[in-house]
Amino acid sequence: MRVLCTLTLSVFSVICSSLKVKASNPPNIIIMLMDDMGWGDLGVFGQPSKETPNLDAMAAQGMLLPNFYTANPLCSPFCVQFDIQNVNLFTAYTPQEIVGGISKDEILLPQLLKKRGYISKIVGKWHLGHRPQYLPLRNGFDQWFGAPNCHFGPYNSSVRPNIPVYNNTEMVGRYYEEFKINKKTGESNLTQIYLQEAFDFILEQHASQQPFFLYWAPDATHAPVYASKSFLGQSQRGRYGDAVMELDDSIGRILSLLRSLHIENDTFVFFTSDNGAAVMSGPNESGSNGPFLCGKETTFEGGMREPAIVWWPGHIKEGSVSYELASVMDLYPTSLALAGISPPDDRTLDGLDLTPVLLKPSHTLQIRPIFFYRGNELMAVRLGQYKAHYWTWSNSWEEFKAGINFCPGQEVPGVTTHNQTEHTMQPLIFHLGRDPGEKFPLSVLSNEYQDALGRISSVVEQHQKSLVPAAPQLNMCDLAVMNWAPEGCEKLGKCLKAPKSEPWKCDWPH
Amino acid sequence: MRVLCTLTLSVFSVICSSLKVKASNPPNIIIMLMDDMGWGDLGVFGQPSKETPNLDAMAAQGMLLPNFYTANPLCSPFCVQFDIQNVNLFTAYTPQEIVGGISKDEILLPQLLKKRGYISKIVGKWHLGHRPQYLPLRNGFDQWFGAPNCHFGPYNSSVRPNIPVYNNTEMVGRYYEEFKINKKTGESNLTQIYLQEAFDFILEQHASQQPFFLYWAPDATHAPVYASKSFLGQSQRGRYGDAVMELDDSIGRILSLLRSLHIENDTFVFFTSDNGAAVMSGPNESGSNGPFLCGKETTFEGGMREPAIVWWPGHIKEGSVSYELASVMDLYPTSLALAGISPPDDRTLDGLDLTPVLLKPSHTLQIRPIFFYRGNELMAVRLGQYKAHYWTWSNSWEEFKAGINFCPGQEVPGVTTHNQTEHTMQPLIFHLGRDPGEKFPLSVLSNEYQDALGRISSVVEQHQKSLVPAAPQLNMCDLAVMNWAPEGCEKLGKCLKAPKSEPWKCDWPH
Repeated sequence: MRVLCTLTLSVFSVICSSLKVKASNPPNIIIMLMDDMGWGDLGVFGQPSKETPNLDAMAAQGMLLPNFYTANPLCSPFCVQFDIQNVNLFTAYTPQEIVGGISKDEILLPQLLKKRGYISKIVGKWHLGHRPQYLPLRNGFDQWFGAPNCHFGPYNSSVRPNIPVYNNTEMVGRYYEEFKINKKTGESNLTQIYLQEAFDFILEQHASQQPFFLYWAPDATHAPVYASKSFLGQSQRGRYGDAVMELDDSIGRILSLLRSLHIENDTFVFFTSDNGAAVMSGPNESGSNGPFLCGKETTFEGGMREPAIVWWPGHIKEGSVSYELASVMDLYPTSLALAGISPPDDRTLDGLDLTPVLLKPSHTLQIRPIFFYRGNELMAVRLGQYKAHYWTWSNSWEEFKAGINFCPGQEVPGVTTHNQTEHTMQPLIFHLGRDPGEKFPLSVLSNEYQDALGRISSVVEQHQKSLVPAAPQLNMCDLAVMNWAPEGCEKLGKCLKAPKSEPWKCDWPH
Repeated sequence: MRVLCTLTLSVFSVICSSLKVKASNPPNIIIMLMDDMGWGDLGVFGQPSKETPNLDAMAAQGMLLPNFYTANPLCSPFCVQFDIQNVNLFTAYTPQEIVGGISKDEILLPQLLKKRGYISKIVGKWHLGHRPQYLPLRNGFDQWFGAPNCHFGPYNSSVRPNIPVYNNTEMVGRYYEEFKINKKTGESNLTQIYLQEAFDFILEQHASQQPFFLYWAPDATHAPVYASKSFLGQSQRGRYGDAVMELDDSIGRILSLLRSLHIENDTFVFFTSDNGAAVMSGPNESGSNGPFLCGKETTFEGGMREPAIVWWPGHIKEGSVSYELASVMDLYPTSLALAGISPPDDRTLDGLDLTPVLLKPSHTLQIRPIFFYRGNELMAVRLGQYKAHYWTWSNSWEEFKAGINFCPGQEVPGVTTHNQTEHTMQPLIFHLGRDPGEKFPLSVLSNEYQDALGRISSVVEQHQKSLVPAAPQLNMCDLAVMNWAPEGCEKLGKCLKAPKSEPWKCDWPH
């Protein structure tokens, strides 16, 4: 018997009986991607205030992946290939004046999931290009509620328009305007709105018995951070912690909803973040990368190692840990495998199907490297426990002297360099098991160094041979392309006048 | 019916029926004190290799105390008052030539526990003075198996004798001799011996229905670190990690034994460490302080915040967390409260009874400060989330330039100073909730700073008024007092000839 549930946020604990999904049905897929949340922000990863009971419980009921990486703290075209998750990486720091966006040659996950009848929704930040042709509904998603960009100042729609919030193809308001964020108090109910959107979507698809893909990408932990009134001041960690607590609470509610609907065994949930904590923003507006070096925008562990939890009751062993090196790029082939869809055969995928590992923690994949890119430069490579840095760089002396520090409180001589320092002839190698903080480079004279280098070198050589240059997407900027007059602005009377088009070659400070 | 159990290590999973301890009986007390293990060495506190499944499970079955401190990284006489736990602090770095030891004016925990019939044993390192009058059986313990000191070089009983291992009052061998530690491979079965001693003691007291106090203080994680053959090479973290894994395994076995004997509800177990990880020893021989600053010997969080887990099934809520500021000095009054013994009324205790917090995590004690001493100097004070540094110092320029770094990879200008830097007129204040890594001092001009300073100043004033100077115990050294010929050496033919007594005033480099 099929029961239409009318659960809402306020009654989410009501238990509905649901049609048992047939074993052959593909699972629902939920990918939760946090914004600038660090590895060390979760209790289960050692945040001393232990304020993420729901994420900690999610880990206790599922699997923890302590060696999970993002693809790039500022993504090269190569690494976005086929990967919806690179959304936030691709343009992590791209300004609103970016002309380009996701290439039409890419096949995004929701486009493929459609083959098995999935309905796909993105809630939150898109960040794969904000001009009409790049937006989610033109790229395989059926629904969208959220914003195309980060919300940077001046927050008054003057020099830059405040970023719009879209409901599907039309703007329904702007951050700081219809969707209020109090810059002074940090109060905003946006996370609650994004939670409600997730709830409504799940209930709707459940009622119509559609398998669904929900990409939930709230941005409360990206500076300027915000939280709802009931969470403000609740954290021991200040406003950033309030935002984390609200997200943690929301995630708990989403998992509870799945249980209430009895679809927890039919819903694969993956939690992670887009890059390391933005530690350059200081303690009030940024999180923690735990024991790792530096943060967002760097290729040290603090920049790219991510909190990662997989939850799929009945399929994934409770409280398990997989030490497998894995990457956000793996979510594309993994999701396809879950859905029983063959990956496109006209291209090589950057990721691996993780399902063998997830379903059996002791399983290990082929030995696989993790590549650390910054722009188009291969900065470092991890293979097993060894990480070789071919280039090191925190940020420039100019920025550093101006008080912008990508590694506050941390300084490893010759490693956290303020010049782009080349080590390609003799890379710096760390053993991340003994030295997760990248503080003690191995002696180049040791056998251990030579062995590790030999193995890494051949992997790098192979990798570099296999690269196919892609058309650059981040090279042109133009103030005229900003979100002055998104579709739907007329209805709201919120169209702004764009300046004259004067494209220029973008300048990338990092 | 009383059943004599004959469990040994190899059959510890056999379940014995035992006489149900009467409700009014005081619980057994086990204090597990690790040596130089850091806050960040446990999976539950964020060690990325997640190699402490037994400690993580202990936390899941008990309570985590993320704000638990040691008394001092190198203890002043004041802070050892009444506290068996200060054993390892008191002489954390004291050399074997120390003349002094625990004052006869102190009343140690086992002395008081005797009033309620407890049998007390210390297994492992004593470190409260190694001359005969200072040893455990002269200070309230009924049994001892272990060593009086740290094991430093040259490991051949030449310039310094190797440290003896005592069984009660007599030496039964020495580290590196009868109790082998292979300096090259790190192999030693000492942790297994210490585990077996714990097992035998628990079984014996259980059989004779005596309440017991076991102080289990293995030293495998103190450099030079060691592990048994079956653990060597098992960790992702190298030899230090192997030692941690063996300790974690041992702790799991002890808790399993308690369950097998059905005395888990009658046995209070507290796990902690003596000071922060000795990060100056490098990645092969030392652990991790997680997100905290510096390590052992400093008064930054990395030096003094300790991993702490309380386990007492049926009494302490599973998976609970208490944010209470607490200290190893609290274990003295807490243990007395558990045993139903009144503390001595002729002196003021330094610690507080934690039982109200442990039995009800939401309970909060009176607002209480944590004092951070280095030698006799009050370096810093924590009150609530605020920590005020009156003095800062990592280590000397001389040491630092010689390659000894107490804060490897970390540098906070004006904080991790290499001169003993006074800030008493304007202390550096950190908010440890937002900034657990002590990287961002509050602006002295802020209201927050002024408010915090006001509250802390009055606490410090009150504290300093209440101090009673004690006779110094660590001031005299003499090569003749080293462990040349401990009691029992004759039977073994292991007596060494002591040099002529030439006492001098000890020199403290730190």
